[in-house]
Amino acid sequence: MRMVDIISKKRDGKELTTQEINFFIEGYTKGTIPDYQASALTMAIYFKDMTEKERADLTMAMVNSGETIDLSAIEGIKVDKHSTGGVGDTTTLVLAPLVSAVGVPVAKMSGRGLGHTGGTIDKLESIDGFHVEITKNKFIELVNKNKVAVIGQSGNLTPADKKLYALRDVTGSVESIPLIASSIMSKKIAAGADAIVLDVKTGAGAFMKTEEDAEKLAHAMVKIGNNVGRRTMAVISDMSQPLGFAIGNALEVKEAINTLKGEGPEDLTELVLTLGSQMVMLAKKANTLEEARQMLEAVIKNGKALEKFKVFLKNQGGDESVADNPDKLPQAKYKIEVPAKKSGFVSNIVADEIGLAAMLLGAGRATKEDTIDLAVGLVLNKKVGDSIQKGESLVTIYANKENVEEVKSKIYENISINNKAEKPVLIHKIITE
Amino acid sequence: MRMVDIISKKRDGKELTTQEINFFIEGYTKGTIPDYQASALTMAIYFKDMTEKERADLTMAMVNSGETIDLSAIEGIKVDKHSTGGVGDTTTLVLAPLVSAVGVPVAKMSGRGLGHTGGTIDKLESIDGFHVEITKNKFIELVNKNKVAVIGQSGNLTPADKKLYALRDVTGSVESIPLIASSIMSKKIAAGADAIVLDVKTGAGAFMKTEEDAEKLAHAMVKIGNNVGRRTMAVISDMSQPLGFAIGNALEVKEAINTLKGEGPEDLTELVLTLGSQMVMLAKKANTLEEARQMLEAVIKNGKALEKFKVFLKNQGGDESVADNPDKLPQAKYKIEVPAKKSGFVSNIVADEIGLAAMLLGAGRATKEDTIDLAVGLVLNKKVGDSIQKGESLVTIYANKENVEEVKSKIYENISINNKAEKPVLIHKIITE
Repeated sequence: MRMVDIISKKRDGKELTTQEINFFIEGYTKGTIPDYQASALTMAIYFKDMTEKERADLTMAMVNSGETIDLSAIEGIKVDKHSTGGVGDTTTLVLAPLVSAVGVPVAKMSGRGLGHTGGTIDKLESIDGFHVEITKNKFIELVNKNKVAVIGQSGNLTPADKKLYALRDVTGSVESIPLIASSIMSKKIAAGADAIVLDVKTGAGAFMKTEEDAEKLAHAMVKIGNNVGRRTMAVISDMSQPLGFAIGNALEVKEAINTLKGEGPEDLTELVLTLGSQMVMLAKKANTLEEARQMLEAVIKNGKALEKFKVFLKNQGGDESVADNPDKLPQAKYKIEVPAKKSGFVSNIVADEIGLAAMLLGAGRATKEDTIDLAVGLVLNKKVGDSIQKGESLVTIYANKENVEEVKSKIYENISINNKAEKPVLIHKIITE
Repeated sequence: MRMVDIISKKRDGKELTTQEINFFIEGYTKGTIPDYQASALTMAIYFKDMTEKERADLTMAMVNSGETIDLSAIEGIKVDKHSTGGVGDTTTLVLAPLVSAVGVPVAKMSGRGLGHTGGTIDKLESIDGFHVEITKNKFIELVNKNKVAVIGQSGNLTPADKKLYALRDVTGSVESIPLIASSIMSKKIAAGADAIVLDVKTGAGAFMKTEEDAEKLAHAMVKIGNNVGRRTMAVISDMSQPLGFAIGNALEVKEAINTLKGEGPEDLTELVLTLGSQMVMLAKKANTLEEARQMLEAVIKNGKALEKFKVFLKNQGGDESVADNPDKLPQAKYKIEVPAKKSGFVSNIVADEIGLAAMLLGAGRATKEDTIDLAVGLVLNKKVGDSIQKGESLVTIYANKENVEEVKSKIYENISINNKAEKPVLIHKIITE
């Protein structure tokens, strides 16, 4: 088998065999196939796409390129959730305790990553004493006992995907549905998921700007999952404005606590219930999405969800009293209001630019070496469709520096007020095949 | 300027600027742009093509990537000829003395290369004493005095093209008209051509199998030439069967001598007159193609063409008496006839397979290290459309080994005899824009 023949075959629009895809991924991981052939192939895939079978093969080849996590010692169906990323996305912090409260095992492996705010682990570390450095045995024991635990990313998972993604990034083939879909799915499968719920964001603040592209990606991932024996469902959700009110690490933890109490932002609550229902369904803890939703609403109402959060924190060394007293979370020195310059309705909040404003305060990382200020961030006091009076606070800035003029300008530039505005639809679509 | 943006721009079908193309070629030549970005770009070009302006820019960027030959000390318009390659192609050996006999300066730089037979230099070296190791001053002096000289390839011409071609060869982007056209044209221009005549072969033995593709390539090259100030014309000629009768180095020299005497094969003679007329026109030695052709026919008839060949040989140390006595050329030990197994008409001669049969005898090189046997080869006694009687010789094998069974089988497998057959058209088209 020669790599140049595989490239030419795909270039001519023909379907690659399982053997050919394995040959490529194995050789590329080992380094016997050079970057210059891999980049030619990914560009050919960009133009000629991949069939369902090829996508499934590529995903499994990448899963098999490195270590995989064996969660078989955990009872029940392990359902993982993945979001394609947005601004102020606090869903994991809420979902993990919420679905575990109805008996769904949540064995979450999480990383730090780059972005407007930290990753799930960064956010959780704003709780005094909480840590994810636990052994694998302890991790499995905790999930079996309490249905929820989070462990830091370790091991050499999907090295082929890491190498290929870095290459695509500098050779113009990032925006390819089959390559994005197999990249995401391979990581979830290698991390031990039996079933997967996907939150595919669409809108200005998302990677998929149009609903059409988001839908294509969702279908692609759901099909891969189902073709490789991992039941998968997806939600297309709105990311034209940030999700919830809070953008910042400790601020999002506080918002998660509020949501677990049933006092969270409307959109975050709705998204968490939608994704959570799918997780409960896939874990076979309910027969219908309606039943699943009612179960989740019940544990929010009767306090079991918040109780589960406390147990989860305590298990991993965290100060669980934070759940009743969120002021124990890191507090920023300065709290600065950004008043509306005119009256009207909020008509647009440019999600990614508002995320960048939070980064200017120190809430996120641009490079791996950056340190995060867990206390800082923004809280939106109004969302798209809300009415506002001149002088009323649009956004509250939580900062550890006095001069936030740059942040303020960014906020004014990216929040529009108009005579009328409509609330955007949050859940665009549910994709099950 | 970032290479990844240039790749994405081309991927999206947009026209690259002169600056962007120069940035790519300069960086790639220096090594600051890696192979993996170059291969992604060439694959994007494969799918999205290049505009006329981009093709001209790419050609000149490759010309400027290395040394160029300055032929300005030679009087007159220097016209170079390029063939896209085929089997038994003896045109250069005939054309060089022929057009110089009517006053067109022929300053030919030639290489050895790989193939079914050797390159022009290999063929000429079958003449005792002939050599191409002359100084550049001597070369220019000879052309000024006698209008014809051949020098061996030297200097670092079009390094970007060499590097890029080697990369395309292993990354599936060889078959791209803009890349093939700019590669060929950059080499001719770097070698000092003021004007260029192209012989684009089509058919089973050619790189361009269909006439449609050959025409596209011819138009692409002619447009590049004219856009960068080098008048260019092209002929689409038949390579469904080998050209002429002889395939082999000394055998082709003999055939060239016969052709210069007016006793050559019909197809070779016709092609040489067609290409030669264009060269004479481009050198402004005639006003019309008809006039140019008459001039060439005249020097064949009156012996001046053969005389010029002798002067050319003598100037470069060769035994010019070979022109009157071709038996002085290297002779093979064995001369073996391949008789027809039935009577009828020759309906097909698979050019590239017959070329391989000659290679089996040792007439060509598969790798740079191979040595060539100048004496061996094949002479076709019949061409497509000719009638033949059972037992009559189809091909004569000139070999230095007794056992030529493999060669014979290859010949039988690749020459068909049928109840009827038509002579293929030799000159398919003349392309001037």
